[in-house]
Amino acid sequence: MAPPIVLVLNAGSSSVKFAAYEAEGEGFAQAKWRGQVEGIPGDPALTVSEDGRRIVDGERLKASGVGDHASALKIALERLFELFGRERLLAAGHRVVHGGAVFDGPARIGAEVLAELDRLVPLAPLHQPHNIAGVRAVAEVAPELPQIACFDTSFHRTIPAVASTIALPRELRDKGLRRYGFHGISYSYIASLLPERLSEAERGRVVVAHLGNGASLCAMRDGRSVETTMGFSALDGLMMGTRCGSLDPGVLLYLLRDGYEAASLEELLYRRGGLLGLSGVSADMRAVLASDAPEARLAADQFVYRIVREVGALTSILGGLDALIFTAGIGERSAEIRARVCRGLEWLGVALDEEANEAAAERISSPGGKVATLVLPTDEERVIAEETLALVAAAREPAL
Amino acid sequence: MAPPIVLVLNAGSSSVKFAAYEAEGEGFAQAKWRGQVEGIPGDPALTVSEDGRRIVDGERLKASGVGDHASALKIALERLFELFGRERLLAAGHRVVHGGAVFDGPARIGAEVLAELDRLVPLAPLHQPHNIAGVRAVAEVAPELPQIACFDTSFHRTIPAVASTIALPRELRDKGLRRYGFHGISYSYIASLLPERLSEAERGRVVVAHLGNGASLCAMRDGRSVETTMGFSALDGLMMGTRCGSLDPGVLLYLLRDGYEAASLEELLYRRGGLLGLSGVSADMRAVLASDAPEARLAADQFVYRIVREVGALTSILGGLDALIFTAGIGERSAEIRARVCRGLEWLGVALDEEANEAAAERISSPGGKVATLVLPTDEERVIAEETLALVAAAREPAL
Repeated sequence: MAPPIVLVLNAGSSSVKFAAYEAEGEGFAQAKWRGQVEGIPGDPALTVSEDGRRIVDGERLKASGVGDHASALKIALERLFELFGRERLLAAGHRVVHGGAVFDGPARIGAEVLAELDRLVPLAPLHQPHNIAGVRAVAEVAPELPQIACFDTSFHRTIPAVASTIALPRELRDKGLRRYGFHGISYSYIASLLPERLSEAERGRVVVAHLGNGASLCAMRDGRSVETTMGFSALDGLMMGTRCGSLDPGVLLYLLRDGYEAASLEELLYRRGGLLGLSGVSADMRAVLASDAPEARLAADQFVYRIVREVGALTSILGGLDALIFTAGIGERSAEIRARVCRGLEWLGVALDEEANEAAAERISSPGGKVATLVLPTDEERVIAEETLALVAAAREPAL
Repeated sequence: MAPPIVLVLNAGSSSVKFAAYEAEGEGFAQAKWRGQVEGIPGDPALTVSEDGRRIVDGERLKASGVGDHASALKIALERLFELFGRERLLAAGHRVVHGGAVFDGPARIGAEVLAELDRLVPLAPLHQPHNIAGVRAVAEVAPELPQIACFDTSFHRTIPAVASTIALPRELRDKGLRRYGFHGISYSYIASLLPERLSEAERGRVVVAHLGNGASLCAMRDGRSVETTMGFSALDGLMMGTRCGSLDPGVLLYLLRDGYEAASLEELLYRRGGLLGLSGVSADMRAVLASDAPEARLAADQFVYRIVREVGALTSILGGLDALIFTAGIGERSAEIRARVCRGLEWLGVALDEEANEAAAERISSPGGKVATLVLPTDEERVIAEETLALVAAAREPAL
């Protein structure tokens, strides 16, 4: 019999990414199928690869008269079920951006959990509704399929109150204003690797740099998050592709007096800042690094500068640094950015092995360095698949 | 003949503080007169001390039918002139919060400079107009008196573009959106003391903690500012008496959707956050430390936590730490806060001499510590008096 399948969905504003894993015993091999629906709303198109080979290539879903998010996703799901057989599906796991102060781990989605996800929409109005739309689409196409939510915030629920509390009046804190932290699924994956990759002495005080189009740092003590650079929203902390990161609240007051309001500020802060806004060239670090424009150089310089600054901040919270981990797009693939960050951190005992760094070896610190420095590719889909499988398996076990 | 006098004015929103110094050769002794006009607008009252003795004690200026800022200040100035003799006045020096990207040092105020100060109002709408009102009041009462502006931003004009540039589109940067930094008059004073107070090896990489009702850190390399925690406005960085400090811009977007607008946000961020907003007890650190309320403890903990975090950040920019200086109200007077900050920084080699700290000795590090740790009382009025005298003297020297 063909092994059961766990489907992983990451439903964003303009695309839905998915991966489908065949369960092997208690774990998984690589995702057998990967793909996405792009061009939502308007002109949705499905692309699927099987074992790395493209088997569906930009198939237009609009031919079916479907443009909106939910129905595009439903048709895409039905096409997927044809591909690998509906009867083999064991469960669907969803990336959900916000678990608020409620969810400190993955949750089986029933009516109550779904209502809670809805209640959290005001905390992540740009992302949460799309995540929820993904859940509802699966429920319509396969009502009986177990669905699991994995949250980008859960891993950070161990951050102490001294760091997570925002110093504003109680009535605002009671509405949910606090620092949550994000990229938690990625950090959770990296944390799961550390016992194999680092010696016990190396893994006490770790900073993980998740440097993708979104970027943040996480300070881990013994594998648990104790501080992170993102806060209430995904806008805070490091400079990113189109987000400027930490920003003096006085700038927003100035812009409000200058004619901006909530919607235009949101568009500015999420889409027009960061590498793109400063360089004037691109939100893509490769293009920024390739440009000779002075503002592109300044953008790359500031990207590095702010990582160096914030690694210092998180190291101060940890009381020292044993290991530094690079992950996500830029962290995994830009030897130049890694090298520049490491040079800025030499004072902490970071010492790069230049050859290992160029080769993107797993361990890129020189043997004499005091800080173990690693490149570890992240795999958020795998975490979601594993947590989904574990929760479904647990639910099937008879109570003692 | 009685020595000439330099008057120093610090004109704020509800009070105007002043100090008057008798010039002695090229310097000053202590300010001979100090005082303030409080209760502006509404019920202005003047208090003056001479050589530490109170000689005017809450004299109501309203009896003169005067309630507004400018005329209250004019009447107060006339009273002062009676006290020490108008003919002895050499010049007036003003604390001006914002010198923009223009002023990298003190400036003699003429029509052009005054117009520039006016142009900078949008960058500091809560403070700059009061500073300017002080200048205009002096000009009306003593039109021929030389007036000098000393800026809270000037000391930070050495911060490099990588730190001062905000990663937003160019059209916004061209409007003056950048990180300026504040408390520069205080930092300038502290920097002037360092050659006497620290050995050459100790003063290369210094972090100064200005911890008053407003609070910030400054990273100095060889006595020059290279980074600071305040940015575009005085809202950024550390937690303060009524300001929460750094705040995820997403919080402001949330509050805008929740019904706040520019004026109510400004009031919230300047007046209702920080120690006051979190503790629910007081904006005064002494009251917060004296309280047993859990939220008061959390507020003090977070105040310390964020200093420790940001000293780490600035140390990473400096590439190490040679000296740590405490100054301003809390920094000079709270042995407890100093001790807790120093404990959080032990990993950097900060080692406190507990007895020296309790006694608020100038040097509070133990001889074995790697980081020279000092308490240095700040004196912003003195800097303004000295810069004012220097500029007036320079103007009188014949050109070569």
